[in-house]
Amino acid sequence: MKIGFIGLGKMGFNMVEHLLELGHEVVAFDVSAEAVKAIKAKGATAASSLQHLVGELDAPRVAWMMVPAGRPVDAVIGGLAPFLKAGDIVIDGGNSRYTDSVVRAEKLREEGVRLLDIGTSGGLDGARHGACMMAGGDREAYTIVEPMLRDLCVENGYGYMGKSGAGHFVKMVHNGIEYGMMQAIGEGFDLLRASGFAPDNETVARVWSNGSVIRGWLMDLAGKAFAQDNDLGWLGGKVADSGEGRWTVEAAVDFGVPVPVIADALFRRFRSQSCESFSDKVVAALRHEFGGHAFQSPEAGEEKP
Amino acid sequence: MKIGFIGLGKMGFNMVEHLLELGHEVVAFDVSAEAVKAIKAKGATAASSLQHLVGELDAPRVAWMMVPAGRPVDAVIGGLAPFLKAGDIVIDGGNSRYTDSVVRAEKLREEGVRLLDIGTSGGLDGARHGACMMAGGDREAYTIVEPMLRDLCVENGYGYMGKSGAGHFVKMVHNGIEYGMMQAIGEGFDLLRASGFAPDNETVARVWSNGSVIRGWLMDLAGKAFAQDNDLGWLGGKVADSGEGRWTVEAAVDFGVPVPVIADALFRRFRSQSCESFSDKVVAALRHEFGGHAFQSPEAGEEKP
Amino acid sequence: MKIGFIGLGKMGFNMVEHLLELGHEVVAFDVSAEAVKAIKAKGATAASSLQHLVGELDAPRVAWMMVPAGRPVDAVIGGLAPFLKAGDIVIDGGNSRYTDSVVRAEKLREEGVRLLDIGTSGGLDGARHGACMMAGGDREAYTIVEPMLRDLCVENGYGYMGKSGAGHFVKMVHNGIEYGMMQAIGEGFDLLRASGFAPDNETVARVWSNGSVIRGWLMDLAGKAFAQDNDLGWLGGKVADSGEGRWTVEAAVDFGVPVPVIADALFRRFRSQSCESFSDKVVAALRHEFGGHAFQSPEAGEEKP
Amino acid sequence: MKIGFIGLGKMGFNMVEHLLELGHEVVAFDVSAEAVKAIKAKGATAASSLQHLVGELDAPRVAWMMVPAGRPVDAVIGGLAPFLKAGDIVIDGGNSRYTDSVVRAEKLREEGVRLLDIGTSGGLDGARHGACMMAGGDREAYTIVEPMLRDLCVENGYGYMGKSGAGHFVKMVHNGIEYGMMQAIGEGFDLLRASGFAPDNETVARVWSNGSVIRGWLMDLAGKAFAQDNDLGWLGGKVADSGEGRWTVEAAVDFGVPVPVIADALFRRFRSQSCESFSDKVVAALRHEFGGHAFQSPEAGEEKP
Repeated sequence: MKIGFIGLGKMGFNMVEHLLELGHEVVAFDVSAEAVKAIKAKGATAASSLQHLVGELDAPRVAWMMVPAGRPVDAVIGGLAPFLKAGDIVIDGGNSRYTDSVVRAEKLREEGVRLLDIGTSGGLDGARHGACMMAGGDREAYTIVEPMLRDLCVENGYGYMGKSGAGHFVKMVHNGIEYGMMQAIGEGFDLLRASGFAPDNETVARVWSNGSVIRGWLMDLAGKAFAQDNDLGWLGGKVADSGEGRWTVEAAVDFGVPVPVIADALFRRFRSQSCESFSDKVVAALRHEFGGHAFQSPEAGEEKP
Repeated sequence: MKIGFIGLGKMGFNMVEHLLELGHEVVAFDVSAEAVKAIKAKGATAASSLQHLVGELDAPRVAWMMVPAGRPVDAVIGGLAPFLKAGDIVIDGGNSRYTDSVVRAEKLREEGVRLLDIGTSGGLDGARHGACMMAGGDREAYTIVEPMLRDLCVENGYGYMGKSGAGHFVKMVHNGIEYGMMQAIGEGFDLLRASGFAPDNETVARVWSNGSVIRGWLMDLAGKAFAQDNDLGWLGGKVADSGEGRWTVEAAVDFGVPVPVIADALFRRFRSQSCESFSDKVVAALRHEFGGHAFQSPEAGEEKP
Repeated sequence: MKIGFIGLGKMGFNMVEHLLELGHEVVAFDVSAEAVKAIKAKGATAASSLQHLVGELDAPRVAWMMVPAGRPVDAVIGGLAPFLKAGDIVIDGGNSRYTDSVVRAEKLREEGVRLLDIGTSGGLDGARHGACMMAGGDREAYTIVEPMLRDLCVENGYGYMGKSGAGHFVKMVHNGIEYGMMQAIGEGFDLLRASGFAPDNETVARVWSNGSVIRGWLMDLAGKAFAQDNDLGWLGGKVADSGEGRWTVEAAVDFGVPVPVIADALFRRFRSQSCESFSDKVVAALRHEFGGHAFQSPEAGEEKP
Repeated sequence: MKIGFIGLGKMGFNMVEHLLELGHEVVAFDVSAEAVKAIKAKGATAASSLQHLVGELDAPRVAWMMVPAGRPVDAVIGGLAPFLKAGDIVIDGGNSRYTDSVVRAEKLREEGVRLLDIGTSGGLDGARHGACMMAGGDREAYTIVEPMLRDLCVENGYGYMGKSGAGHFVKMVHNGIEYGMMQAIGEGFDLLRASGFAPDNETVARVWSNGSVIRGWLMDLAGKAFAQDNDLGWLGGKVADSGEGRWTVEAAVDFGVPVPVIADALFRRFRSQSCESFSDKVVAALRHEFGGHAFQSPEAGEEKP
């Protein structure tokens, strides 16, 4: 197929390389001229603008966006829209909030343009060698781009999830589960380390990666991380949170679904982002008030009566 | 009544002062001669040893221990036992683990000595001016000491909880609830502070202390703490955990009772005790492995690709 | 003072009775003519419409709404607005979402009308005999109505929390804390009951209400509930959730504040609302798949291989 | 190798079949004569007693136990011990509590007998075709049995975890992580179902199993379960909990390690085991007391004022 591709960041660049390798024609655009130059060297057609990009495509045009969630997505859609025609297909392959995808699809539908919201998983390696994709939106548009999904994904690694928003919703829930799984793994290794046994983490991860109930890609990655340093001394303990963990908890609250594990995983990330928490200080102050319990002064580690 | 009192720490000293004030005769002992001297100055009879203390009492002797949980309790019981006779009453007013109290009562019962396990709440102020007490053990022994409990406690603030262990069990659960309540209060003030409103914490605590659903002693104490400093800048964020929070969670696990809130409150205390957590590092490492996500190096705050 | 009062439900009716008792003049309206008749019998002036109500007041008019959050509030404001003038004050004393209050205040401000968002706590009894109130909005308007707040609330039980939205925000956080506290109390009594001690719940609640660290109104209420039946056999286990618990968790997610205890309390309510959970079924199915573990069939209690 | 094998339940039988298939000689015993007969038909030597079993082996004898944790393990060790000699090796391949394994190893060491504690994962299928094994205990004994582990496990799926207890400790933590992962997966599918999208669960699980970040054996099993019924209508929602989840939480409490996700997963299992919870009833009662909130009567679904 011939498609337009907007957004040559880490994920997007890898995906375009993958598409080119498999014989697809790609017209690529990015705000970074350097990125466009680099992908041209790999065989893509360079577009100098969104208008130029659309002009290079054949009806029904397919334009795949791989840009950060929020305003960048709106900006790209706004830049493409004047040049698109009824029947054209825009794909949002990023991590947009599903409610945004519902609104955007509705708006593009007024002009006959079809928005597919396609959540992508599998990390950088997946983007390059075979990803996992969850698609939502117009069924016919999905059928048109399916051959490309088949090429971009590992076997059986893609599917149609339902009406507009469904693709990003399923991807969001995927990330929520990911938060919970990662936190469970983190807690396990924390406990191993604190015990008197303190086995070699790389060995544990390697064994758990082969034949255990909890084997899977995350455990493989844990093995790779511990192979570098059993104590992970090369990194600090702050864990960023992307939008999807937050949206998952908000959606659960909206729909009245209990998600204690996913929420706790999110809250641990929030907690990791600073050394101290005001909440803890309040508890320390209360203990001091009723029991005269010692407390740690902020300046030093010594205990006070 | 005339009683022996062992343990003149912050709680014990206040309780003996209270008893003396109300006209009870107290024979007091502590490993610290200084503490014994100080309580003698308040009107107590000083005992130079546990044997001396028992010798000063009349049958049925009542010896009240207010010493740290664990070995100190066993040490005092071991020191008293040779001098006690059938019918005598030993009170463990400290924070012993309820399972220990069951075992100790069983053992003393062989000699006809009755152990009452009495959990005490109300903090230092309660010890001095009126506490809350939960008693377990022999019913008749309880009846004998009840007049003293009536004097030591605020009105309606004491009761018989059942067989040996029940007093400390009910006190343990009280502390578990306290953990959950304090954490809820901490979370609330943390959220106020992070919001754009950031109202004055002392005002909020004062209003919540008067007429609201969540009014109570803990909220009064929050008001006192914030009166000193709206930001609690005078203390650090490490929160110690005494045995009772841990025992509550362990008991819940034993009895198959779900206690998500009490357990989370305990885990937040564990988490507060160090700036970094290995669990968080594992999550950060996994994110880096699959997504090339930036991570914080341990040395500095800068982000790495 | 003379004020208009809209909404004579359980809370509103009690508040108007309280105001009348204290000598205030109240012009009252409700969609239920019966409620209006009943309050007229207590001494209020009956209004037949919102227009009528406004017409009976003197500038600056003060109209207090006590209606359900959401559309009813917008409907009443919409009904009042055409008759209000610059300088008038509208009070939303209900449980509106704070973000709504910010928007509504902004809109009324265009006409010079001042919206005070006043969160009310203390239950039905508080509404009748002395409540707790947290106010947000225009400072001058607050000063005008303060004498009424002083009368409606218990001593020290009201205060100014800041700009528009602050009153409802602080009330919302109050309810979040309430969720956490109630869940902690529930877990504690659940654990007592499951233990071998199973003390009398009313006795425990009575003792904890007097002198303990966790004493407070909620514990008093627990004592009242257990006085009716130690096993609470008169009610089922479904716990409804009002908007405020959900909004608290959503605000915490928005502001990046970890609230594990408040969120778990909310999730336990969600969980209580049905006998079975699909989440549990998924876990049961996974266990069956990997271990051939027995599972419970939906029809009956028997175990299957 | 030639080994004795005690315990021909679901796991043990599969393991012996696997060993026989790979050319090992197995002398097998079980309390069920029928199981022994069945395994004899597969090529094992039938032992009529533990004494008989030991008598058939050559020094250093290796006896592998695959029996339920607790008393059965002690019973088998007690039955074997009189016939074992210094240098012999006993393997506990079951799910014993790690603290028990430490004590048992200590005791057998007095006679020169070496206990290896080997945690086994991978379910029934793993037992038959390739499992995952975590071993603790005497290093030399481990080296002796390693060829058998290599045959029983998938490639790289076994390892030495450290001194006595380490094998069962690492297995216990594995199960704790498993609890957390399964709960995260359950929450995700619960949320999908409650949303307006409600995609086909089998499709979702199939896509997530291929190329996603959360791919792994548990997701494969979810796909198999949903393939039978998208609604899992064939099972109820009660989820049993084996000892290991409880022990993991207890160990975490002992070592002061926060495990909010693993604990919440355990508590959700506790909660699933009955339709109603007393904790929820207490919360419902409190709401009724302060707010006159409707509550559900136990008999019926109707709401009461």
